[in-house]
Amino acid sequence: METLEQLNVIIEGSARHVHVTREHLKILFGEDAQLHNKRELSQPGQYLTEEKVRIEGPRGGIDKVSILGPERSQTQVEVSFTDARVLGLNPPVRESGDLKGSAPIRIVGPAGYIDLEEGCIVAKRHIHITPEDAERYGLSDKEIVQVRVEGERALTFDEVVVRVSEKFRTRMHIDFDEMNAGQICPEQTGLVIKKK
Amino acid sequence: METLEQLNVIIEGSARHVHVTREHLKILFGEDAQLHNKRELSQPGQYLTEEKVRIEGPRGGIDKVSILGPERSQTQVEVSFTDARVLGLNPPVRESGDLKGSAPIRIVGPAGYIDLEEGCIVAKRHIHITPEDAERYGLSDKEIVQVRVEGERALTFDEVVVRVSEKFRTRMHIDFDEMNAGQICPEQTGLVIKKK
Repeated sequence: METLEQLNVIIEGSARHVHVTREHLKILFGEDAQLHNKRELSQPGQYLTEEKVRIEGPRGGIDKVSILGPERSQTQVEVSFTDARVLGLNPPVRESGDLKGSAPIRIVGPAGYIDLEEGCIVAKRHIHITPEDAERYGLSDKEIVQVRVEGERALTFDEVVVRVSEKFRTRMHIDFDEMNAGQICPEQTGLVIKKK
Repeated sequence: METLEQLNVIIEGSARHVHVTREHLKILFGEDAQLHNKRELSQPGQYLTEEKVRIEGPRGGIDKVSILGPERSQTQVEVSFTDARVLGLNPPVRESGDLKGSAPIRIVGPAGYIDLEEGCIVAKRHIHITPEDAERYGLSDKEIVQVRVEGERALTFDEVVVRVSEKFRTRMHIDFDEMNAGQICPEQTGLVIKKK
């Protein structure tokens, strides 16, 4: 069997954030609302916006949560379990967009608020990868891999889902509970390990 | 070689907490201060107290941080990296009691405050184990092992230090960043894996 090259993927921490539909953006920020690009993110076409909202659960709220652009077909809130405890929510671990049965949450903007019956998740750790890199490193869409991180808090993440698209840049995304558990610094990489 | 039994150790999350000297307790709570046992902890003789303090760093403070009893020979503050960010501190990952060069922090009580030049750490993940269990499972004091946790956020912690004492009860201790990264529930166990 051919020995494939090993992928050391750059790990990025995703802070809590919100994706919104056009309709919900209007409710939160008013009829003429637009998302304003503050900074490009690593994934092509994705950006941090100037727009911030408050998110609320039964126990408490968190202010100044960023909306990521562009608008999407479903409104979605991604938090860490640390955030979930502040909010008093018990969101499931899910891939982005898989919202069925996810936690209810309120989003509050300057012009109004929306109550989602479902929409709050903790993101499943994942690797975005280009088709070229996927082929080079022998990885396929939806494959579950492990990622080894070195350091004083060395650990190996399991249950990391691979997502392949020509729209992607090759990066691993985890939340800040996971970044902190591994004491992972900006630009740090993890070694992708295929499961037997 | 003899095949040893495998240890599935109960994992407990340690919230941020403070240990105090008698002298510092007096400054924080007054001359006649005593620690009041609120609840026994899993380690024999260790207890959560009724006494709470505020901890402060250059960026912010955290209220209602519990003191653990009994009094100790060194005052020490254990936080997570999530807490450290709120405080604006950069504490090292250390075993309890290893405070040389650790982060400075202020502790504020109802009667006064103390400024520690060093004393704030992020606890190194560790296993407390009885001599009987250590022998049974082939583990020794100061040994570094891995611990595998199953579930939707399955992961393997590396750099877990084993501490053997007849004063201990066999338990693994990690902080809440680590609990959340592994979506670890109360009473959940991890499989201890010896390093080659």
